Amino acid sequence: MRFFSDNAAPVHPAVFAAMAAADHVDTAYDGDMLSRGLDARFSALFGREVWAMWVPTGTAANALACAALCQPYGGILCSRDAHIQNDEGGAPEFYTHGAKLMLVDGDGAKVTPDAVAAAANLIANDVHRVQPQALSITNATEYGRVYTPDEVAALGELAHGRGWGFHMDGARFANAVAHLGCTPAELTVEAGVDVLSFGFVKTGGLSAEALVFFDPTLVDATKRRRKRGGHLLSKGRYLAAQIHAMLTDDLWLQTARAANAAARMLADAAGERLVHAVEANEIFLRVTEAEAAALRAEGFDFYDWAPGEIRLVTHWASPADEVRTLAAAIAAL
Amino acid sequence: MRFFSDNAAPVHPAVFAAMAAADHVDTAYDGDMLSRGLDARFSALFGREVWAMWVPTGTAANALACAALCQPYGGILCSRDAHIQNDEGGAPEFYTHGAKLMLVDGDGAKVTPDAVAAAANLIANDVHRVQPQALSITNATEYGRVYTPDEVAALGELAHGRGWGFHMDGARFANAVAHLGCTPAELTVEAGVDVLSFGFVKTGGLSAEALVFFDPTLVDATKRRRKRGGHLLSKGRYLAAQIHAMLTDDLWLQTARAANAAARMLADAAGERLVHAVEANEIFLRVTEAEAAALRAEGFDFYDWAPGEIRLVTHWASPADEVRTLAAAIAAL
Amino acid sequence: MRFFSDNAAPVHPAVFAAMAAADHVDTAYDGDMLSRGLDARFSALFGREVWAMWVPTGTAANALACAALCQPYGGILCSRDAHIQNDEGGAPEFYTHGAKLMLVDGDGAKVTPDAVAAAANLIANDVHRVQPQALSITNATEYGRVYTPDEVAALGELAHGRGWGFHMDGARFANAVAHLGCTPAELTVEAGVDVLSFGFVKTGGLSAEALVFFDPTLVDATKRRRKRGGHLLSKGRYLAAQIHAMLTDDLWLQTARAANAAARMLADAAGERLVHAVEANEIFLRVTEAEAAALRAEGFDFYDWAPGEIRLVTHWASPADEVRTLAAAIAAL
Amino acid sequence: MRFFSDNAAPVHPAVFAAMAAADHVDTAYDGDMLSRGLDARFSALFGREVWAMWVPTGTAANALACAALCQPYGGILCSRDAHIQNDEGGAPEFYTHGAKLMLVDGDGAKVTPDAVAAAANLIANDVHRVQPQALSITNATEYGRVYTPDEVAALGELAHGRGWGFHMDGARFANAVAHLGCTPAELTVEAGVDVLSFGFVKTGGLSAEALVFFDPTLVDATKRRRKRGGHLLSKGRYLAAQIHAMLTDDLWLQTARAANAAARMLADAAGERLVHAVEANEIFLRVTEAEAAALRAEGFDFYDWAPGEIRLVTHWASPADEVRTLAAAIAAL
Repeated sequence: MRFFSDNAAPVHPAVFAAMAAADHVDTAYDGDMLSRGLDARFSALFGREVWAMWVPTGTAANALACAALCQPYGGILCSRDAHIQNDEGGAPEFYTHGAKLMLVDGDGAKVTPDAVAAAANLIANDVHRVQPQALSITNATEYGRVYTPDEVAALGELAHGRGWGFHMDGARFANAVAHLGCTPAELTVEAGVDVLSFGFVKTGGLSAEALVFFDPTLVDATKRRRKRGGHLLSKGRYLAAQIHAMLTDDLWLQTARAANAAARMLADAAGERLVHAVEANEIFLRVTEAEAAALRAEGFDFYDWAPGEIRLVTHWASPADEVRTLAAAIAAL
Repeated sequence: MRFFSDNAAPVHPAVFAAMAAADHVDTAYDGDMLSRGLDARFSALFGREVWAMWVPTGTAANALACAALCQPYGGILCSRDAHIQNDEGGAPEFYTHGAKLMLVDGDGAKVTPDAVAAAANLIANDVHRVQPQALSITNATEYGRVYTPDEVAALGELAHGRGWGFHMDGARFANAVAHLGCTPAELTVEAGVDVLSFGFVKTGGLSAEALVFFDPTLVDATKRRRKRGGHLLSKGRYLAAQIHAMLTDDLWLQTARAANAAARMLADAAGERLVHAVEANEIFLRVTEAEAAALRAEGFDFYDWAPGEIRLVTHWASPADEVRTLAAAIAAL
Repeated sequence: MRFFSDNAAPVHPAVFAAMAAADHVDTAYDGDMLSRGLDARFSALFGREVWAMWVPTGTAANALACAALCQPYGGILCSRDAHIQNDEGGAPEFYTHGAKLMLVDGDGAKVTPDAVAAAANLIANDVHRVQPQALSITNATEYGRVYTPDEVAALGELAHGRGWGFHMDGARFANAVAHLGCTPAELTVEAGVDVLSFGFVKTGGLSAEALVFFDPTLVDATKRRRKRGGHLLSKGRYLAAQIHAMLTDDLWLQTARAANAAARMLADAAGERLVHAVEANEIFLRVTEAEAAALRAEGFDFYDWAPGEIRLVTHWASPADEVRTLAAAIAAL
Repeated sequence: MRFFSDNAAPVHPAVFAAMAAADHVDTAYDGDMLSRGLDARFSALFGREVWAMWVPTGTAANALACAALCQPYGGILCSRDAHIQNDEGGAPEFYTHGAKLMLVDGDGAKVTPDAVAAAANLIANDVHRVQPQALSITNATEYGRVYTPDEVAALGELAHGRGWGFHMDGARFANAVAHLGCTPAELTVEAGVDVLSFGFVKTGGLSAEALVFFDPTLVDATKRRRKRGGHLLSKGRYLAAQIHAMLTDDLWLQTARAANAAARMLADAAGERLVHAVEANEIFLRVTEAEAAALRAEGFDFYDWAPGEIRLVTHWASPADEVRTLAAAIAAL
């Protein structure tokens, strides 16, 4: 019974079916009709013209977004707990050619306009100091918290007022939208986001994330950087097919709702043990070593996040009985 | 009837089946048993201990290999027609942080030890000149020519005598081995190759190439660079599964033999029109504009390589009747 | 009466004289006898074989040292107040190709082995996290504090125990040695330092710092990186001449002692206002806005470090009467 | 009697005098009045508003110019014999983060619009190929040839028609202007040049070159890159002083005229031995090994350029008697 990571989840059958349907001789790279149809598909979803391309990983999406928004000699403000800072092996620094990540504190990996502004205000505007050029937030955050459209808009206003680009790492964007019940546009372009890493792998995809641009001037350079980063797969149609499948009948939202619901069940069982409010599909619990061992003895697998703290992650295919059993086990601790 | 690129080929059913068989909850990234089994699998194939990892594209494989063998301030000798020079959007320069590609002339994109040595000998050994640190060859080459084990060994001897690393871009390694009838080891590690980009996508895979190291000291840094490049897919087991499928019952060789045989049929029909000897699955033909138009009018799709020259590429799934029809059409020109 | 920066100081007459003495036709770059004599000169100073080269700035020295000790995918532990983090416009990230600076808290910009180890211990050893590969300290620090040989040795032991390189930014190394009365070797190579940025510009030089290596394996690559960074001046003999002049009759120490003595006089006048113990040539004072304005009205120029805090810097040529006048003015606040 | 390099020349007394005149406490970095006066000084020279900054080397100037004009994923067209390709240790690749130098053949290291266009036309405009973004020429060239204003303008027209930036490496710009008798503006901004590396070191300076921008949008980023490259010297006023001295009373032109006149004398003696027309201060001669040895036996020092070819370089301070003696020796061969 694995609650280790949503990356461990299987692939949704509809995704496999779409890949099989794309399995014929076709144009290489992103010249096929499925790849070429992504702009229109995402434009429909966001209710305006947007520009989209597939990439095989969220790390590639985030790093390319950073490079699109920040010069090598600039800086990117982000949460101290951001995935781009802690979990991407230095990919943002690689793709930006050495931009500096500027860390901002915030509860549950959420940053506030005040905290971001305070961090930026410490930086004198001269050539000796690296200057911030972009702001990146993760929604849902690395601690399973969700920014509301208003919260994003306040950060967007700050960013654009300072002349910074604004990126959203949406590895769990689906979980955030599912939680909020808002439209994808309300949480992004209407709140000032310039580029969105729109995750599909954690919600049922196999190897395709989308990079969605709300600013067309960033697209051409990113296509060149994508190729230069080795991310232009020669059989790209199989990646495009995955994304089309996820967007059909809002499959991306359905799977996220399932994951969120499973997390909610665990959260309700956890009560005072919760370290962070549970708004997406991650649950951080305070447990003693003995309690963690007891859960493992019952067959549950999870991540030891910190001393006295574990992380549980649900996903679209988390078996209902396993979730119920775990909820009961937590309640019984 | 498409003879445009082997990248346009579909995915082999055995590859899809292996991915489906891997479709269950498992460890993320490359912690699953399939990914962890690649070292042993390739060690068996090469008859000695080797180290292997999946990457999603040949460009990533080549660029990571370049970075493993060459410092940012060094140079990489390669054919003027090399894929790493002309077709990867600057990926080698990106991953090496600006190493210089040093171009060597050679017939059919094959370089000789004499030509490589001559190019290197022009470079004074001082800090003003970028110094060569690696040699990279493509086998089969970009023009469908094949280096023999002896030819590779002669280049390997030169490379190691000069202290250079030695990389083989094997996007069509299968076609080369199929043509030669040698073992994979004879064409690589026994001939001095340090790192091999072992291509599977052109011969039936979907999104997995292998980077095979014959020198263990290069592995750890490359794993970090792979992550940093955004190439550590979170559901890596689906990539490992593709490679295992291709290696089972020598599927990679069977599919390459089919592609080579189709190319042979076209080559035999082409006679004096051949620009390069056909040893793999690419055929370059001298045709007039009118002849090219005539072929297209008959329904054939291909690449205009240069004025008066077209490129045809066969693949594992090229329909036999289409190949026969094209051969007849070429003979009839 | 300027107490703004030791960078504002004039050039020592002996330095000018040495440059004039070098003013004849000679070999370009670093092929002249003065440049070639640096290894021997510094070997004499450190009492063992060391390797030294000139660079025009401390930023270049530090960034080259970082690149010598840390791979692009690695990290460099340093004080949160380090010059390499705050004052070099991202040069360490540029020269290392994107290594990550990992910030450690510490009083007066001094880090302790415990604090460094604690920061490093938070970093899981997997490919997702950038791994520390080097430790860099500044001596004297950015707040005018000095590490003793024992303190450096404790950090050196930690660094080498973890397999990290160890760099000392010695922009004010002279001030530290002058304060301690130890030998240069005791404060560096005997305490585990691998590379020293040995500053001369702040103590009377014009445009020459030295990069001193205690590990010969780092030298060749650094010479190539120095050229690649555009730091191999064609008339390098004029830089070498400056360094030889500074080393003659311990001029570098004499000038540092003068600067330290001036700082001591100001510190004695400041009493409880001192933010940091004054051990080199920088004085940080708590003053109100009105007090700062009063000092400025008396003709003193200095840096507003933070709200309620100013920075005063003395140098080798700080006029004695100006120092006395300022000391009196501070005491009279 | 050294004819090895103009880099070996001494420093002009007026340059030393200007440095001495700047030797007092002043603002650090480029905040002093001399540094801040460079824009106006060069604006007067070029007869319009231009923007200028000092850097310590020509390699830094060229590499910063390349970075200003070309993205990391772009290419820079230049002569196969360009200094940026052969003599800067990969600095352009470093500062551009891996842009590709695209080599164009041309007699005497001069490229023509036709040759440049032909090279560019071979590059298909897709993401697989690195796209040219800038053109860089050297004037006077590495072989002592000079582009006329009309020739530069024709290249400028090509460059801007294609949307490329246009850089001139003017390490020997003074020699070119002295040869042509034109204005600096006619040879640069009026001919479409965007950025000029204006060399002063070879004509009497010590450690200061100027980077002159004719496009203000490139300035801010370059100032940040200059700092990030470690080229913002803390006592920058001594560099600015050198440039002001060189510009006073056209000293830069006077010294270049002297060097050119000395070269002319040698060229006249060489007759049919000349490999390239002598238009600046470099002379390439066909000599046998015995003849080269004979010249050396007479006390002349020079560079063996290639088998059967030597290079002689004159400079502003080449002693008239040495030049006469060498001319006679050449004539007597």
